[in-house]
Amino acid sequence: MDVNIIAGSTTKFGELWHVSPRDMVRQVVEDVIDQAMISRSKLQAIFIGNMLSSSLGGQDHLGAFFAEELGLSIPAVKVEGACASGGLAVHTGCLAIMSGLYDTVLVVGVEKMTDYKPETVASVLMGAGSEAEREAGLTFPALYALMTRVHMKKWSTTEKDLAYVSVKNHFHASLNSHAQFPYQVTLEQVLKSPVIASPLKLLDCSPITDGAAAIILTRNKKAAIRNKTVSIIASVVATDTLGLAEREDLSSLKASVIAAKNAYHQSGISPKDIDVVEVHDCFTIAEIIAMEDLGFFPKGKASFAIKEGVTKLGGYPVVNTSGGLKASGHPVGATGVKQVVEIYQQLTGRGGKKQVKDARIGLTHNVGGSGATAVIHILKCL
Amino acid sequence: MDVNIIAGSTTKFGELWHVSPRDMVRQVVEDVIDQAMISRSKLQAIFIGNMLSSSLGGQDHLGAFFAEELGLSIPAVKVEGACASGGLAVHTGCLAIMSGLYDTVLVVGVEKMTDYKPETVASVLMGAGSEAEREAGLTFPALYALMTRVHMKKWSTTEKDLAYVSVKNHFHASLNSHAQFPYQVTLEQVLKSPVIASPLKLLDCSPITDGAAAIILTRNKKAAIRNKTVSIIASVVATDTLGLAEREDLSSLKASVIAAKNAYHQSGISPKDIDVVEVHDCFTIAEIIAMEDLGFFPKGKASFAIKEGVTKLGGYPVVNTSGGLKASGHPVGATGVKQVVEIYQQLTGRGGKKQVKDARIGLTHNVGGSGATAVIHILKCL
Repeated sequence: MDVNIIAGSTTKFGELWHVSPRDMVRQVVEDVIDQAMISRSKLQAIFIGNMLSSSLGGQDHLGAFFAEELGLSIPAVKVEGACASGGLAVHTGCLAIMSGLYDTVLVVGVEKMTDYKPETVASVLMGAGSEAEREAGLTFPALYALMTRVHMKKWSTTEKDLAYVSVKNHFHASLNSHAQFPYQVTLEQVLKSPVIASPLKLLDCSPITDGAAAIILTRNKKAAIRNKTVSIIASVVATDTLGLAEREDLSSLKASVIAAKNAYHQSGISPKDIDVVEVHDCFTIAEIIAMEDLGFFPKGKASFAIKEGVTKLGGYPVVNTSGGLKASGHPVGATGVKQVVEIYQQLTGRGGKKQVKDARIGLTHNVGGSGATAVIHILKCL
Repeated sequence: MDVNIIAGSTTKFGELWHVSPRDMVRQVVEDVIDQAMISRSKLQAIFIGNMLSSSLGGQDHLGAFFAEELGLSIPAVKVEGACASGGLAVHTGCLAIMSGLYDTVLVVGVEKMTDYKPETVASVLMGAGSEAEREAGLTFPALYALMTRVHMKKWSTTEKDLAYVSVKNHFHASLNSHAQFPYQVTLEQVLKSPVIASPLKLLDCSPITDGAAAIILTRNKKAAIRNKTVSIIASVVATDTLGLAEREDLSSLKASVIAAKNAYHQSGISPKDIDVVEVHDCFTIAEIIAMEDLGFFPKGKASFAIKEGVTKLGGYPVVNTSGGLKASGHPVGATGVKQVVEIYQQLTGRGGKKQVKDARIGLTHNVGGSGATAVIHILKCL
C-alpha cells in the first residue's frame, strides 16, 4: 500500500451544544490543511463518515454539503456503516489513493448526537441492528450485556474485570484535553454506578457525543517535509451477521477476528510488533473481547492483563491512549477517523501527556453495530 | 482504468408492494452471479448505493445487512449521495478494483419508496437540498421548475419542448418490460397533465419507485468468456452547491459540466463517439440541460434536436433507452446502478426491443439533489 497520512485533527469531543456539524468540520479541516501546509485546492476528493445525519438531522447529501463548505467542486462521497462509518471512510480514502485516480484526499468523520433526546438517539442507533432485535426492543447496552454474560460464563470474567477497563481509559482521558470526560474514576465508582443493562453499568458504557475528526491522505511521501511520514500499511474490512442470534459464539466478534487476520497478512505485522492501539470500547466488555480477537492476548486472558496494567500508559501495547470510546467519547461516524488521528499523533510524537514512548507501529479497530462490521487499520512511522 | 463489467441486472421497477428491499437485492444478486458464471465466494466486497433506508426504513448498516444476505463475511460499504448514491457506489466499486485490494466486487443500488406517504417521501428527499430550501418549503419539482423558468427565458425553451422529452422516454419505456410505465404517452397528454410546479406537469416528473440494480466489476477481462467484455473507461464525480441560490447559472448544472469534461479527458472520448446515453431526467428539463451540459448539443439547441427525434431509437446518440427516470422509474439509490446496467446491456447486444444497433460506447449521467453531485461513467465494449 502506498497511502500516507500527512495531517490529523479532532475537535474537542463532548456535548457541543454551541456548535453545528458544519462548525466542527470546518475546524478540523482548517487544522489539517494548516498541518499539511498545502492549499485546499490540492484536495481532490472528500470521504465523509457519518451515520445519523439522515435519521436525526434530516440532512443527506453530506458529501456535497461539506465540499461546498470547502468551496471546492471536487468528488465527495458519504460512507456509512453504523458506528464503523468513520473507519469505512478511511478505508474508502485508501482505495481512492491506491486507485491512482486521486493523489490527495480528505477523510472526515462527524456526528452530532446531543441535540436530541437520549431515547431518540438510542432508537436510531438500533438502525444498525437486526430487525428482530429492534422488534424485541433491544438496545446496544442490552446486546453487549448478552455478550458480557457469555464471556463471563465462558472465561470467568467478572464485573471487576470490566471496571478495570473503564478506570484505565478514564486515566488516559485525564491526559487528553479533547476527551469528553477528561478525569479519572475509581474502581468503586464504576462498580457502584447505576446498572444500565446488567451486568453493564453506566461507567461501563460509552457516552453520546458530538465531535468531528479529519485526516489528509496522500500518495506523495514528500508532501510532508516538516512532518514525519506515517503510512497506512493495512486497511481491512470484514462483516458478520447483523443480529446476535445468528452467531455461533457471543464471546468473540467474528468480523474482528477476520479483519485482524487479514490486516496482519496485508502488512506482514504481528500483534507483538504493535506499540499502540485504539480499539472500539463502546462498552468495557468490547475492549476485553477486542484484545483477544486481535490476538494481543489468548482467549480469556485479556482481563488479567488489563487489570495488571499491561495496556496502560507505560505498558505494552498501550491501548486507547485517547481514553477510548468510553472516556474520550463516541460520536459514532467520527470515531473511526479519530482513532486514526490518535495513532497518527502517537507515531509522530504529538501525543502530549499521553505520548507512548518510541511508538512506531499502531493499530485502529472500529466496529459497527454489535460487530456486524469491523474495520482495522495498521499505521507505521517510516 | 482496468475495470470491467461482467454482469448487470435490474428488478422490474415500479410499485412493488409485495417485495422487500431484501427480496429485490436477492433477485438482482442471484441474477448477476448466474450471468457472470462465478461462485458467490469470488465476490470480495459489496458497495451499496442507497439514500432513504435510514430516514424511511429505520435501517442503517446496509452493507453488513446485504453481506449477511449473501452469506459472506466480506467488506461491505454503504455509499450515499442523495439520488446519485448509485453512481457513487459504482465509482467506489471502480476505486476498489483499481486499488488492487479487490479483484471482483459487487455493486448494488436499492431503494424502497412506495411504502410511505408521498408527502413523507417528498420531505425526506429534501434531505438532499440546502437548509434554506427546506425551510422555505421547496421540494424538487419546485427547484427544477425554477431552473425551467430560467432555461425558458434564456433559450426560449417551451412547455412543448419539455413534453417531447416525456413522449420520447415513454416510447422507449414501452419497449422495456422492466419499466415502471411501459407505455406511450402523447404530446397532448403531457401538456394536459396536472400542473405540479409550474411549468412542470405530472408527465414532466419522474415517479416514486421501488427497485434494485446490480453489477459485478472485475479486473480480470477473461472472467467473462461467454460475455462480451465491457470496460469502464471513465468514472468521474463532481460537486456543486447544495442550494440553487448560491449558483451563478440555473440553466446548467456546473457539476455535470465539470464531470463531463473530466470524463472525456479521462477516457479520451468525445461526445460524438458516444452511441447510447442514460441521463438523469428526474424532470424533463433535466434531460434538456444534461444534453447541453454533456456537450451533445450546444447550449439552447438540445430541445430542437430532441423534438426532431435525434435522440430517439434510430437516431444518434440515443438517449434514455430504458425510458429514463421519467418512464422507467426512479428508485433513487438504484438509479445510478441501473443506468450502468442499461448501457452494459446495450453494449453487449442485450437491449431487446430497445437495442441500439452496433452500440459500442455509452455514457451514464447520475445527479444528486438539484445538481450538487454529478457522476459520469463512460463504458466501452472491447
